[in-house]
Amino acid sequence: MKFVKVQNDERTAFKKNWNFCVGTGRIGLALQKEYLDHLKLVQEKIGFQYIRGHGLLSDDVGIYREVEINGEVKPFYNFTYIDRIIDSYLDLGIRPFIELGFMPSALASGDQTIFYWKGNVTPPKDYNQWRDLIVAVVSHFVERYGIKEVQKWPFEVWNEPNLVNFWKNADKQEYFKLYKVTATAVKSVHPSIQVGGPAICGGSDEWIVDFLNFCAEENVPVDFVSRHAYTSKAPHKKTFEYYYQELEDPEDMLQQFKTVRELINQSPFPHLPFHITEYNTSYSPINPVHDTVLNAAYIARILSEGGEYVDSFSYWTFSDVFEEMDVPKAQFHGGFGLVALHLIPKPTFHVFAFFNALGDELLYRDREMIVTRRKDGSIALVLWNLVMRKGNGFAKEIEIEIPLSFADVFIKRQTIDEENGNPWVVWKQMGRPRFPSQRAIETLRQVAQPKVTTKRMKVEDGVVRLPVVLTKNEVTLIEVEPVNDETYTYVGIDDSQITSYS
Amino acid sequence: MKFVKVQNDERTAFKKNWNFCVGTGRIGLALQKEYLDHLKLVQEKIGFQYIRGHGLLSDDVGIYREVEINGEVKPFYNFTYIDRIIDSYLDLGIRPFIELGFMPSALASGDQTIFYWKGNVTPPKDYNQWRDLIVAVVSHFVERYGIKEVQKWPFEVWNEPNLVNFWKNADKQEYFKLYKVTATAVKSVHPSIQVGGPAICGGSDEWIVDFLNFCAEENVPVDFVSRHAYTSKAPHKKTFEYYYQELEDPEDMLQQFKTVRELINQSPFPHLPFHITEYNTSYSPINPVHDTVLNAAYIARILSEGGEYVDSFSYWTFSDVFEEMDVPKAQFHGGFGLVALHLIPKPTFHVFAFFNALGDELLYRDREMIVTRRKDGSIALVLWNLVMRKGNGFAKEIEIEIPLSFADVFIKRQTIDEENGNPWVVWKQMGRPRFPSQRAIETLRQVAQPKVTTKRMKVEDGVVRLPVVLTKNEVTLIEVEPVNDETYTYVGIDDSQITSYS
Amino acid sequence: MKFVKVQNDERTAFKKNWNFCVGTGRIGLALQKEYLDHLKLVQEKIGFQYIRGHGLLSDDVGIYREVEINGEVKPFYNFTYIDRIIDSYLDLGIRPFIELGFMPSALASGDQTIFYWKGNVTPPKDYNQWRDLIVAVVSHFVERYGIKEVQKWPFEVWNEPNLVNFWKNADKQEYFKLYKVTATAVKSVHPSIQVGGPAICGGSDEWIVDFLNFCAEENVPVDFVSRHAYTSKAPHKKTFEYYYQELEDPEDMLQQFKTVRELINQSPFPHLPFHITEYNTSYSPINPVHDTVLNAAYIARILSEGGEYVDSFSYWTFSDVFEEMDVPKAQFHGGFGLVALHLIPKPTFHVFAFFNALGDELLYRDREMIVTRRKDGSIALVLWNLVMRKGNGFAKEIEIEIPLSFADVFIKRQTIDEENGNPWVVWKQMGRPRFPSQRAIETLRQVAQPKVTTKRMKVEDGVVRLPVVLTKNEVTLIEVEPVNDETYTYVGIDDSQITSYS
Amino acid sequence: MKFVKVQNDERTAFKKNWNFCVGTGRIGLALQKEYLDHLKLVQEKIGFQYIRGHGLLSDDVGIYREVEINGEVKPFYNFTYIDRIIDSYLDLGIRPFIELGFMPSALASGDQTIFYWKGNVTPPKDYNQWRDLIVAVVSHFVERYGIKEVQKWPFEVWNEPNLVNFWKNADKQEYFKLYKVTATAVKSVHPSIQVGGPAICGGSDEWIVDFLNFCAEENVPVDFVSRHAYTSKAPHKKTFEYYYQELEDPEDMLQQFKTVRELINQSPFPHLPFHITEYNTSYSPINPVHDTVLNAAYIARILSEGGEYVDSFSYWTFSDVFEEMDVPKAQFHGGFGLVALHLIPKPTFHVFAFFNALGDELLYRDREMIVTRRKDGSIALVLWNLVMRKGNGFAKEIEIEIPLSFADVFIKRQTIDEENGNPWVVWKQMGRPRFPSQRAIETLRQVAQPKVTTKRMKVEDGVVRLPVVLTKNEVTLIEVEPVNDETYTYVGIDDSQITSYS
Repeated sequence: MKFVKVQNDERTAFKKNWNFCVGTGRIGLALQKEYLDHLKLVQEKIGFQYIRGHGLLSDDVGIYREVEINGEVKPFYNFTYIDRIIDSYLDLGIRPFIELGFMPSALASGDQTIFYWKGNVTPPKDYNQWRDLIVAVVSHFVERYGIKEVQKWPFEVWNEPNLVNFWKNADKQEYFKLYKVTATAVKSVHPSIQVGGPAICGGSDEWIVDFLNFCAEENVPVDFVSRHAYTSKAPHKKTFEYYYQELEDPEDMLQQFKTVRELINQSPFPHLPFHITEYNTSYSPINPVHDTVLNAAYIARILSEGGEYVDSFSYWTFSDVFEEMDVPKAQFHGGFGLVALHLIPKPTFHVFAFFNALGDELLYRDREMIVTRRKDGSIALVLWNLVMRKGNGFAKEIEIEIPLSFADVFIKRQTIDEENGNPWVVWKQMGRPRFPSQRAIETLRQVAQPKVTTKRMKVEDGVVRLPVVLTKNEVTLIEVEPVNDETYTYVGIDDSQITSYS
Repeated sequence: MKFVKVQNDERTAFKKNWNFCVGTGRIGLALQKEYLDHLKLVQEKIGFQYIRGHGLLSDDVGIYREVEINGEVKPFYNFTYIDRIIDSYLDLGIRPFIELGFMPSALASGDQTIFYWKGNVTPPKDYNQWRDLIVAVVSHFVERYGIKEVQKWPFEVWNEPNLVNFWKNADKQEYFKLYKVTATAVKSVHPSIQVGGPAICGGSDEWIVDFLNFCAEENVPVDFVSRHAYTSKAPHKKTFEYYYQELEDPEDMLQQFKTVRELINQSPFPHLPFHITEYNTSYSPINPVHDTVLNAAYIARILSEGGEYVDSFSYWTFSDVFEEMDVPKAQFHGGFGLVALHLIPKPTFHVFAFFNALGDELLYRDREMIVTRRKDGSIALVLWNLVMRKGNGFAKEIEIEIPLSFADVFIKRQTIDEENGNPWVVWKQMGRPRFPSQRAIETLRQVAQPKVTTKRMKVEDGVVRLPVVLTKNEVTLIEVEPVNDETYTYVGIDDSQITSYS
Repeated sequence: MKFVKVQNDERTAFKKNWNFCVGTGRIGLALQKEYLDHLKLVQEKIGFQYIRGHGLLSDDVGIYREVEINGEVKPFYNFTYIDRIIDSYLDLGIRPFIELGFMPSALASGDQTIFYWKGNVTPPKDYNQWRDLIVAVVSHFVERYGIKEVQKWPFEVWNEPNLVNFWKNADKQEYFKLYKVTATAVKSVHPSIQVGGPAICGGSDEWIVDFLNFCAEENVPVDFVSRHAYTSKAPHKKTFEYYYQELEDPEDMLQQFKTVRELINQSPFPHLPFHITEYNTSYSPINPVHDTVLNAAYIARILSEGGEYVDSFSYWTFSDVFEEMDVPKAQFHGGFGLVALHLIPKPTFHVFAFFNALGDELLYRDREMIVTRRKDGSIALVLWNLVMRKGNGFAKEIEIEIPLSFADVFIKRQTIDEENGNPWVVWKQMGRPRFPSQRAIETLRQVAQPKVTTKRMKVEDGVVRLPVVLTKNEVTLIEVEPVNDETYTYVGIDDSQITSYS
Repeated sequence: MKFVKVQNDERTAFKKNWNFCVGTGRIGLALQKEYLDHLKLVQEKIGFQYIRGHGLLSDDVGIYREVEINGEVKPFYNFTYIDRIIDSYLDLGIRPFIELGFMPSALASGDQTIFYWKGNVTPPKDYNQWRDLIVAVVSHFVERYGIKEVQKWPFEVWNEPNLVNFWKNADKQEYFKLYKVTATAVKSVHPSIQVGGPAICGGSDEWIVDFLNFCAEENVPVDFVSRHAYTSKAPHKKTFEYYYQELEDPEDMLQQFKTVRELINQSPFPHLPFHITEYNTSYSPINPVHDTVLNAAYIARILSEGGEYVDSFSYWTFSDVFEEMDVPKAQFHGGFGLVALHLIPKPTFHVFAFFNALGDELLYRDREMIVTRRKDGSIALVLWNLVMRKGNGFAKEIEIEIPLSFADVFIKRQTIDEENGNPWVVWKQMGRPRFPSQRAIETLRQVAQPKVTTKRMKVEDGVVRLPVVLTKNEVTLIEVEPVNDETYTYVGIDDSQITSYS
């Protein structure tokens, strides 16, 4: 059994960078009702500040078209859908973290696309027209939402240009050219608007160095650096519906955060903010790990410490309303979402909600737990028991000693593990219905809630000792509040006078 | 261990008389938002057909006033509030079961009142004015809602006239006079409108006999007989806030139902419907038993069989928004309600919701369980383990054998007991906060949900054998549905390929 | 001035066939929140029974895919989106009028498509696979919604096969083949499910004759006949954004209804129901006529009498959330919708709402007005002043004499004309903002309401004479109700005692 | 015709003191759903900051009770209802302006009451117990809502103690005693909480002087001065349902504001804020003037200038959900409310909504109009034509010249007058139904909206000249915004190509 003694006087801040941003499927999906219902739930229980996704400039959002009038081809900018989308975001209390991409068909230099929804990933056929498009879009945002609002929105140039399937030939010089034209265009609308890149995925971090050197040498504006982080290896098995992959340890992901931060520190722009604009265990939208409690325990570790190294890290994604690999084919299909189809929260959703209950003051942290104090003096802890090996067992016992000035405390514990808050397992018992009936959906929603247990404890000698047992991959939130016992005001109260009570 | 073998061929109907009607605090409370929020929850999860409460004619609803114009005193009928109230009921899919009482101050012959809210319980000072009032009210209902609607509303004359605190001197002949005038007035508006009485509480069942003889002899209209039923004895301890009482066995209540039904059968009107227009364990609105799981287990027994003897039985009451003994003084105060203040369901709420999941076909019933089949062929059972003795233990083991034609079944079990779905116990751990904080309310709502467990079982030899253990006063709903296993359609699926799964 | 004397004793029924069905853009749009918001408004104020649109089987709804497993290509049916869509419809109280089309890419024999959203209009590459698809889809509907529900849904085979852009080569024999395979497949799921065709547009009514003969000769199931009706001529001017067309007189459309009904009467199936599954003035989704009051007055004429000739006629379409000609490019773009973008009702919306206020009893009808009695005895009239010529003036004066048994009547008149309920005109004053600001949207919503005027009139000699002046293209609803004057009950009331009142 | 030339360079601030506070019926009514529905509407369209009403400590809110335990009588404080009420207020974005009164029965020294709902207006039987009550209530507020919140709530001591029906014998010295005990008690909870008085009605302004001298001499805390203002004379006619009164000119009310401000300026506390905690035309809750457009025009004058003299003025009251003279007896009964029963806005409601559209910059003001500029540069004007004489006519013509830098402007005008936004008049046409049917309610809601007209005008020579005609007692809001004409972007557009348009 592990024993942890929390010190009262370690008062460092727990940074909330973990809730700065969250990912979304192509933003055209934000027109959908179910998408917005999921986002509403996420905002109520977690409350992210920003949302980021692909496809702003792709054909389905409809912004860029060309029209031939009197023999002359002219651009036509259509903001019907994007206005509706951003209005919806702001109504739900979340701001866009703008990703400028992909290429409108009419502006594209080639026909290479990515995803079921066919995002064009080729450079513009004409950089002047691209620049005009960027200026038109950013100017429209400023006109509709005001510069005070828009200067709070980061603008990131493209997505993962270091991959051949996201950027033709993964051509670095071409990306730098795109970046320069785009960043300059954004700044031409208003110099206070933030722009950054290079939005790469892991594996080519020399891009970070080269990118910052390029900006320095060419005097190109850059307000932040962005990069992605996943820890899954190449799939070792693929079926029509699922990819299976092994995962690196979560420490590997934190190391990625640190490594790139160090590269920036050494660059000509050592003080630039660094945003992880996507992260998750697996980068595949059909890996069943995303539906499991293993994923939840894994992410708990990242949330607990990631903010020490990066200014934000954006979980990819908030919802299974997502279409990269075609319309989802089953209730649970290994999607990235915190929320499964039919508004069913997954285990990882609750990990974010648990972290949302933590305080601003960090009292203790190790690789398996974090202890905080909230403004009202109450204590909130999250513990997790990540086990990446097969088999049963692996329960972990911990005793935590917390110094408290209260007399009695009320302890509330919320848990997700294999048996609680785990709709994926119940769905398997049901026979994995692809398109569940209304009754099945209701059951899945019921079982998707954490188990809640409560008790009252005495503080003795100025401390309370909490014994905690964690099952394999359990994540638990414990809240410790003072009891203000009012029982004495019910003069003469005596529960033993009730039939069958003693 | 008990063993129950359900027969497939016993196909009698399970009568849903238990959801015909529910009680409410004085109907003036129906103007309140919290009252309507509770009723909405109750209708969503249970769905009663009618609602009945006191005070239609009391001063706060404001229907009867007198005005002196040119020296002449005239009645003034004001339907501002009652229209709003009945509109709200109908919007929520529930109809009024009208109780005609109490006496408007301006019409009263005396000043004797009952309850904190001062319902006047004296006969009218002038029976002609009373008759005019009844005609005015019923006519207004017909004008606003149409006769097709109003003929679905039973009209009951007064409440518990056999008690001196509800009817001056408990004067039986005076009640018969009131009944005759009132019933005749109701029928004068339209002969299809149903009217009945005598709405007595237990203990004076000769009133039933006398009442029906009176109606027969005097040719007075009567469409139904009504009576109340409680099983608590006189309080053995009273404090400022709570009454403590012993309870008779639930069989006693069922016997009350049967006894009165038999009296009616022997009367000049042997085929009249019989409505229990109020029932509960204790008749006191400050008896903590109402907040317990004991109450839930007790009521389960009544719901399971009461409908065999009476045409309806109306649980008193749906909500702790209630004022007979002053404004409620604490979050849990022993109120009658299925729903506690701040929209927190109590254990007995879930018993009603469990019964609402039962089918129309009765397969098996004893004093501890009921097994039904639903229209879609699935099986739904409720079991309870009522223990009216003090002490721990008392767990009960049952095995139920159910014949089924399915291959595999999905079993969903929902439970309330001392540890689950029991916000009263958590509130005690919190130190019984009278006016809980928003955070405490959220916790209480979370812990007020039943525990849900699921599993999959094989049907072998055409039967499934369900082993059930019930803790003291547990009530549990078990639903057994066929599994339509689609796993085979996910070609190549293999959960063991997921990290840590096997 | 025209004088109309309504007779009290003409008691024929006014058939509500006009509200049987309404059209929608591709049904994949039903995933969108704004679409559902519009449909909710339409259902609240008008209340259609069915909704019909293209694209059920097109790629975006995602139903049909193929998968290669172990070298074998197999169909994969995905109901994720269609379940969500039909659940939404039923929640809003509207049923699908199913159109079976267009061709999934994977099943198509060619690559000819129609519309911005690329509906494939070629025959199946393999009729067996098509039949399997139809059986799979209909079977899924029956499984999820029950046969009692699904047998209320008409299934129509394809759309406008008589046009080369909707059906490859407009090949009639190929259509008959498709129809036979499809109708047989539908009936194989359950013989009570209704199937029909040929869903042609006007101009080739010999298809109707040939189709019914084909069904008779080949013994192919057919439960209804369907056809479309528009009255616009070929565009005389086209721009990037608008088509301008002349319209035939509305009598032309009614004549189309009659002509085809007569063809059916002469056919081997003389008693088949006849559904106009699309109609409107112009068949173009970018003709500004749809935004005008002219359109409203024109449609009023159709609604008033169309139901005499056909079993339903389905206005194409309920909402400007529509994509046939690309994402809408401006707030008002000549779309078919009753409701414009941003939930702004157009004049034609109100015509439908006006007809929804009419009674079931037809008292009088001519080409400019319809007078009905409602169940409660009140009278409801709609009048319109369709003027298809340019210029000002054209006001029309009418006096209507209605026999009434009431004393005084309360008259409520609601009007849309160039100056009232006409957001298109206000939008032009604003400078035609393509993507209006939130403030502009609010103004447009305000001005999109009809003008309401009221007055009280005396019935003299058993009649009331209503003088009505209609401006050019005005449509007006007049409701005449009895006054139950309660003024006398306010004893002593005297408005002249109020400062400035007399 | 009047001609007004607005100057561009007069840039004084238009103080929004008019929306600081609004009155309410007894705060126990805030438990009701209809009350909260009205308040929601008011907050959406007007947005007051505070709400003030009587009855916090009256029996129906239930805060103060006494209990005898072991022969000793003790206070029992019950916050069940007040917590629910204040939670509702804060949810709707409005804070309480606390009035400390009336006397709980159990604490009262006598039995004199006021109103149908029987507020006890006698001094406490024991000032120590009163002090304990105040401390208990204020402490509870601080505990539940936090001191940061509660220090934003003004606490006013009692209501109109200068009237014998509101304070026994209108005993000034007794009030000063009450004030001293109460103010000291409030400050004992936290010195930052604001307390004030004397909450008198007009007619005894020596109370103001004496009160401030008393505070100075006795060193009693005082943070603000409060007083009421009505301009109606004694009723010249009374019926069972209505009072009729003549009104002073609105200048009389503004003079009352100024006079008292001057008294404060001369007092020992010259810088104290001054709140008019109630005002209206008539002080009677059954004066039909409140339902008229005369009232609206009258109040417009007060809103336009009152804020120059007082720190707030609180319209009495926001809703006809009100009970001082019994339950309202008819749909329109002369109640104070901005909103009539069944959620129907009255003319005066719209005047407040019109003022809510004004800008912060005052360009011009006289006794009939106010012109402001909003932050975005647009112009907003309110004009009114108050006519307190009987008879027809009295139309007023005004031309307003406004300097503008725009090219074209879009003018939106909203009007209420006898014919528009005037449900009272339509209700009279209906025969004054006391308890209107659902259909009548819908009509009344429709006609309760202002008339909206729009047009486009050219700015010539840097000015626009608005011609305005105001009918008797009309109030109108005019908004002048620049047109950003996008018509040119619709290349080839030509409305004359549409049938019947030119």
